[in-house]
Amino acid sequence: MKLATLRDGSRDGALIVIGPRGDTYTHAAAIAPTLQVALDAWDALSPRLRELSDALAAGHAPSHALDPARLAPPLPRAFEWVDGSAYLNHVRLVRKARGAEPPPTLETDPLVYQGGSGALLGPCDDIPLVNPAWGLDFESEVAVILGDTPLGTTAAEAEKHVRLLMLVNDVTLRNLIPDELAKGFGFFQSKPATAFSPFAVTPDELGAAWRGGRVHLPLRTVYNGELAGDPDAGPEMHFSFFDLIAHIAKTRAYTAGTILGSGTVSNADRARGISCLAERRTLETLDTGRPITPFMKVGDTVQIEMLDPDGRSVFGRIAQRVVGA
Amino acid sequence: MKLATLRDGSRDGALIVIGPRGDTYTHAAAIAPTLQVALDAWDALSPRLRELSDALAAGHAPSHALDPARLAPPLPRAFEWVDGSAYLNHVRLVRKARGAEPPPTLETDPLVYQGGSGALLGPCDDIPLVNPAWGLDFESEVAVILGDTPLGTTAAEAEKHVRLLMLVNDVTLRNLIPDELAKGFGFFQSKPATAFSPFAVTPDELGAAWRGGRVHLPLRTVYNGELAGDPDAGPEMHFSFFDLIAHIAKTRAYTAGTILGSGTVSNADRARGISCLAERRTLETLDTGRPITPFMKVGDTVQIEMLDPDGRSVFGRIAQRVVGA
Repeated sequence: MKLATLRDGSRDGALIVIGPRGDTYTHAAAIAPTLQVALDAWDALSPRLRELSDALAAGHAPSHALDPARLAPPLPRAFEWVDGSAYLNHVRLVRKARGAEPPPTLETDPLVYQGGSGALLGPCDDIPLVNPAWGLDFESEVAVILGDTPLGTTAAEAEKHVRLLMLVNDVTLRNLIPDELAKGFGFFQSKPATAFSPFAVTPDELGAAWRGGRVHLPLRTVYNGELAGDPDAGPEMHFSFFDLIAHIAKTRAYTAGTILGSGTVSNADRARGISCLAERRTLETLDTGRPITPFMKVGDTVQIEMLDPDGRSVFGRIAQRVVGA
Repeated sequence: MKLATLRDGSRDGALIVIGPRGDTYTHAAAIAPTLQVALDAWDALSPRLRELSDALAAGHAPSHALDPARLAPPLPRAFEWVDGSAYLNHVRLVRKARGAEPPPTLETDPLVYQGGSGALLGPCDDIPLVNPAWGLDFESEVAVILGDTPLGTTAAEAEKHVRLLMLVNDVTLRNLIPDELAKGFGFFQSKPATAFSPFAVTPDELGAAWRGGRVHLPLRTVYNGELAGDPDAGPEMHFSFFDLIAHIAKTRAYTAGTILGSGTVSNADRARGISCLAERRTLETLDTGRPITPFMKVGDTVQIEMLDPDGRSVFGRIAQRVVGA
């Protein structure tokens, strides 16, 4: 089942169910007006949403052509957005880029940060560039949406709390990071509004690619029309989503609708390319002594997508353009 | 006008309006079912809530006796909880306690962190102590609830986005902080669920005590029945709420219902006491070479309250007990 949120002038948009090819939809308001309402009563409402999804696929529900530009993020505002950094190749590269050592507990203690969740970007929303000197970058990631997750949830218990999966563009202002982290309180101004994929999908949509709390498919990023990278999101995710859930639930509980991200998908094999410009700039520095690729500028485009083995887009495509603010 | 949220079995509770002495209430469901709904349409709904508040005060609305133990936090789950650290005396003391230097930009660049906002504690909710070794501490603070706040809002424009004020117990696990901050991503596990005062009040409830984006009243903290501190929340708030709003709006926008905290209220005059045990332990270390006061244990109580010049409790009283988890 693929769910999405149509912009309708309200703050939280209108829940829709997406057809099997990703190009049609039907309204779900009779079941739940918004995705948050569906998540709040998931056990009762998700079977009814699934029936509607089946009816749409069978031609037994009203079907409308989908215009992705009309989509909000699946959760236009979420109660929490927590982002991990589970691909250690990425952590090692970006820390090298800013001359910082990875923490000694890199392989045993997950890195996570709390992101802003009250104003999120839809899949086709422009990215405002307020100041080019801030060093605008994309970061392509996978994320899960949790149901209610109690304090003390273990990795072994975590799977049942995963309701939906999405893709993420964790937009980052790279040049604001060093001063901000030097203050000791983590990212804040360096993380502007985050963008999400058109669809939030149930784990079964991934078939065998969803196993062990990881998504075993390549994540394709196209930057200004050229393939920037297609690293596999599976094997090199050092901490699985289940590990990340156990980490964040150690000292508190989470409400339904909490979004948890994987961190920038990254493979050690350079042939798989990059999911953020900071990695490319670090590799350039290692090879030539200095970064060559500039950060994003007005007019740049970035597309983020995941195709299943049959070439179908699982989550729809994030397709954003940088505009002047 | 004082607003609060009554627990009614739903996730977001029921909005109520509080009587002038803080011991009565009337239901506001006919105007807005929840505080978030009221904040989402504040310009349209707040005049009606104020009429109801006036009617309650005049004896022209149904009045019920208020049991604070039945209150949820004003926003049981918020879209963002951002906490500053605007009292520099506190920053200097707690950094001294963990052997860390204050950042060189301490006086020019506010410290803020993004807190978890999806599962918050009511004013009389127990604080679970999962592991005494984690070093449980309270932190007494003031907070504002924002309306929609655009990207790029300046300090001069900030006041009109302040809708309501509250008190906070920013519960902290002191012994988890050093390892967490060493990883570079800021607080996470060291900040369990945060607690809020019974009432969220409009700025006019503070009269002349609300000026320049600061609350000029003492914040009283009683720990295990003894006054721990009553520092003035006004003059030593180095960055005002308006400064903090400008800081957080530099790179993104905020939705109505975003909570923004002041950080632990602290005065340089030792006679005003403390608003967290970490400060007391640091002072003990400075005086005697080692901390004497232990962190919180099962059975401990903490009360946080602000009285106006006439001795009336502006926000009601946070009154929590530590329990085994």
